[in-house]
Amino acid sequence: MGAGTAISALTEGAELRTWSLIVTIFGDLARAPRAEIPGPVLSAITARIGVKPEAMRVALHRLRKDNWLTSRRDGRVSHYLLTDVGRAESEKATGRIYATRPSAPETWHLLIAGPMDPAERLERDAAMAASGHLALAPGVWLGPGPTHRPAPSLFTIEGVPGQVPGWLKAEIMPPALAEAYAAFGATMATAANALGTDSATSALDRAALRVLVVHGWRRLVLRHPDLPDGFFPDGWAGPETRTQVTELLARLGKPTVAEIATSLAEA
Amino acid sequence: MGAGTAISALTEGAELRTWSLIVTIFGDLARAPRAEIPGPVLSAITARIGVKPEAMRVALHRLRKDNWLTSRRDGRVSHYLLTDVGRAESEKATGRIYATRPSAPETWHLLIAGPMDPAERLERDAAMAASGHLALAPGVWLGPGPTHRPAPSLFTIEGVPGQVPGWLKAEIMPPALAEAYAAFGATMATAANALGTDSATSALDRAALRVLVVHGWRRLVLRHPDLPDGFFPDGWAGPETRTQVTELLARLGKPTVAEIATSLAEA
Repeated sequence: MGAGTAISALTEGAELRTWSLIVTIFGDLARAPRAEIPGPVLSAITARIGVKPEAMRVALHRLRKDNWLTSRRDGRVSHYLLTDVGRAESEKATGRIYATRPSAPETWHLLIAGPMDPAERLERDAAMAASGHLALAPGVWLGPGPTHRPAPSLFTIEGVPGQVPGWLKAEIMPPALAEAYAAFGATMATAANALGTDSATSALDRAALRVLVVHGWRRLVLRHPDLPDGFFPDGWAGPETRTQVTELLARLGKPTVAEIATSLAEA
Repeated sequence: MGAGTAISALTEGAELRTWSLIVTIFGDLARAPRAEIPGPVLSAITARIGVKPEAMRVALHRLRKDNWLTSRRDGRVSHYLLTDVGRAESEKATGRIYATRPSAPETWHLLIAGPMDPAERLERDAAMAASGHLALAPGVWLGPGPTHRPAPSLFTIEGVPGQVPGWLKAEIMPPALAEAYAAFGATMATAANALGTDSATSALDRAALRVLVVHGWRRLVLRHPDLPDGFFPDGWAGPETRTQVTELLARLGKPTVAEIATSLAEA
């Protein structure tokens, strides 16, 4: 059972919150408008990963309450789908998660605020982070692309970064996060090895593996800004891990919900 | 006496330190290598401005002790000239003082230091200011032209400034300095009026007037970084004052030391 070993490698020690796993599942398998996942398919995927039915019920309740998911009944079967809000949020993260290359903007903009009181600064820092800016110093932010309607109180400059010093690289990629990348890379290698050249993996197993790979990767890339490799410490495992993720996802292919349902019926 | 009225307008209320005036005189009239000013010519210019002989002696002593000026005796007459150090310092300021247009670099560089202790920051701020950089925020400096051998600990970006906010304009040109510009502009207008169309001004008077104009202007432009007009507050008198200075200097012409000596003999 190559797939079983690979699934164990990817779940072992991983912090898997059920609601967050479900977010990954919909983002990976049912992001398109009107795409649905029948309850039994959803339960089969999470069960394969080791999630208990009770945990599933709680997570689905929470995601409906948070207006991320909705559902419709068709006879005795519930069908789940993303709300417009959930789909928009998924789309926002998609570019980062599935990118096969690091970001490489041709131009950048830098914004500098004047003296601020601490409350103002916290508020601005949060807004800047949300719009993809990197804080370089108190009140100084770097963002990809040209300046976009800056507040009149900001100094702006557009151009190309030259030198990225070590202290900044360490702020962008703190040791704990760098270690998490290396650990995930090692896990990916184990999983890829376990799968070997096994081409008989079922659609359900492939879906479960995809979800675990995307989930682990998502939890890494969304914890730091989207930047070219030159902004990260030398020897950082990011680029290699990205290649592993891209290759494993390509190898697993993307089973459709119908294919997964069929593989359930056959099992 | 148009020249006399003009000289009074330019000396009235002006803070004229004798040693600083002498620095202006050599910078304006004897900056070339080996250019000399005979003691009697130097004394005649400063006397025309109202400097007492005793103040002259003290100032010349100080400037020799500081290795700014040197002298040689020729019979009973001392001839003064800039040392290599004094000439180098004069040359450094020349571009700023005599520029007929504001600076307009095609590209700029911005440098960002990581966290620093206060002593380190003071030292860096001083070094950055000395190399023509403008502090935009703590540990953030803007300089004209491309990055030039930056310390490895600095983040660098090269590009073109867009928006210059009001808080930065007010830091670059604080109200007191802006008022000093406006006051000097008014003085320049009075002096230009007093001179009228008088073309009979002696070489000595023209030298004294040049020195006063250059001196007043030098004390303004060297008090802030060299920046395009867009970095200064709206309505700032700088551009107009620069035009007044350029026009008055052109109108006075530049008497040679020999011409001044001749005009003394004729007086």
